[in-house]
Amino acid sequence: MLSKNQIKFIRSLKKKKFRQTNKLFLAEGIKVVEELLASDFELHSLYATSSYKNPHKIKDLTIIEEKELAMISDFTNPNQVFGIFKIPSQKDLPREGLTIVLDGVNDPGNLGTIIRLCDWFGVKELVCSENTVDCYNQKVVQASMGSLTRVSVNYLNILDYLKSEPRTIYGTLLNGENIYMVAPEQNAVLIFGNEANGISEEVKSLIQHKLTIPQFGESKKTESLNVATATAIFLSEFRR
Amino acid sequence: MLSKNQIKFIRSLKKKKFRQTNKLFLAEGIKVVEELLASDFELHSLYATSSYKNPHKIKDLTIIEEKELAMISDFTNPNQVFGIFKIPSQKDLPREGLTIVLDGVNDPGNLGTIIRLCDWFGVKELVCSENTVDCYNQKVVQASMGSLTRVSVNYLNILDYLKSEPRTIYGTLLNGENIYMVAPEQNAVLIFGNEANGISEEVKSLIQHKLTIPQFGESKKTESLNVATATAIFLSEFRR
Repeated sequence: MLSKNQIKFIRSLKKKKFRQTNKLFLAEGIKVVEELLASDFELHSLYATSSYKNPHKIKDLTIIEEKELAMISDFTNPNQVFGIFKIPSQKDLPREGLTIVLDGVNDPGNLGTIIRLCDWFGVKELVCSENTVDCYNQKVVQASMGSLTRVSVNYLNILDYLKSEPRTIYGTLLNGENIYMVAPEQNAVLIFGNEANGISEEVKSLIQHKLTIPQFGESKKTESLNVATATAIFLSEFRR
Repeated sequence: MLSKNQIKFIRSLKKKKFRQTNKLFLAEGIKVVEELLASDFELHSLYATSSYKNPHKIKDLTIIEEKELAMISDFTNPNQVFGIFKIPSQKDLPREGLTIVLDGVNDPGNLGTIIRLCDWFGVKELVCSENTVDCYNQKVVQASMGSLTRVSVNYLNILDYLKSEPRTIYGTLLNGENIYMVAPEQNAVLIFGNEANGISEEVKSLIQHKLTIPQFGESKKTESLNVATATAIFLSEFRR
């Protein structure tokens, strides 16, 4: 049973401001919730319908009706379980291996896909500018499909971060070197920009190597690749 | 000015059944509409607010109010222009170069992204199983960002199509050969499957070479890559 106040509180966490004040975020559906329960993320509270099997044997489980789940769910077809988890505090960032830096990525689906790609390609740290969409936005949590439990996402002033960066700094632009002709360093930072405007001017000035995915064929009419598909191709090139 | 009947007719075209009966589809926003106007697609009718510059000097342009545009638009912020275009008849498919085959891709955003990737990587023909999402679905039209004007999308019985295919048939699966170790043929067909279930069993039996993007590192916990990001990586590997 959910009280009116509980519903109001849960719904408030759909807004970034309230997530940040309460240091809590929402996740739903069996796949994502169970990946979070099996990870280092701390559970705040868990709501489920009577059909939920509770494989992690969570004691503080509140059984709710299907229609109550529908009231708090973002899904067209709510899927048994809904959790509130604690937002972890930011850790120190090791300056080794490959780190992805996002400069103003706006779309939750894109960020979710990029987190999933980092997980696939073994990138453990993702650094986001403060104006990048919140990774605890429910759409990002769901699109990342549990990869948020294996990729550390950090929000900070990326200009300061990049100014003190000892590794090679690569940036992805439309007029850089052909990525297929470059042997990329594995100790590096790789920057992707905003969907519409790319990498901001100040950040651009810190790039040491500009990289581009060349367009195939003669037409050259496609404007650009979506930032998530570009990330897929660059990560594949760094790791192949 | 839009009549009630016009609004009803336009809204009916948001459904596949009515698009197929009328052989018409919808497109909106300056970028997509102007790419269609500049292409071989035939215009049926065009609606725009008074702020629209009409660079293609379309004579049969109906000026409508912002609030009328909002009534037919799928956008949160409608963007000046809304068009109805004719669905072209299917052409003969040349069996040369690289053709992408989709077996049951469901998500409109994924299909739109795949069409855009085909355009970027110079793939002129996309073949879709009859249960693949309709490429004239408005979400696909918008996600493809005008690439629909340069990539021919064809719906047919892919089993029959593949059975008479003279080129090499590649399929993307989770247990195939490492794509980074393969030198792929440029005269080929490359098959991608449904988001949840992959390639169907009957189609799978026609694959000559199974290909996989290997996961990097030790965790191996990411379930799979999204079909659009997988397409990005495979097309990049075929064309690099």
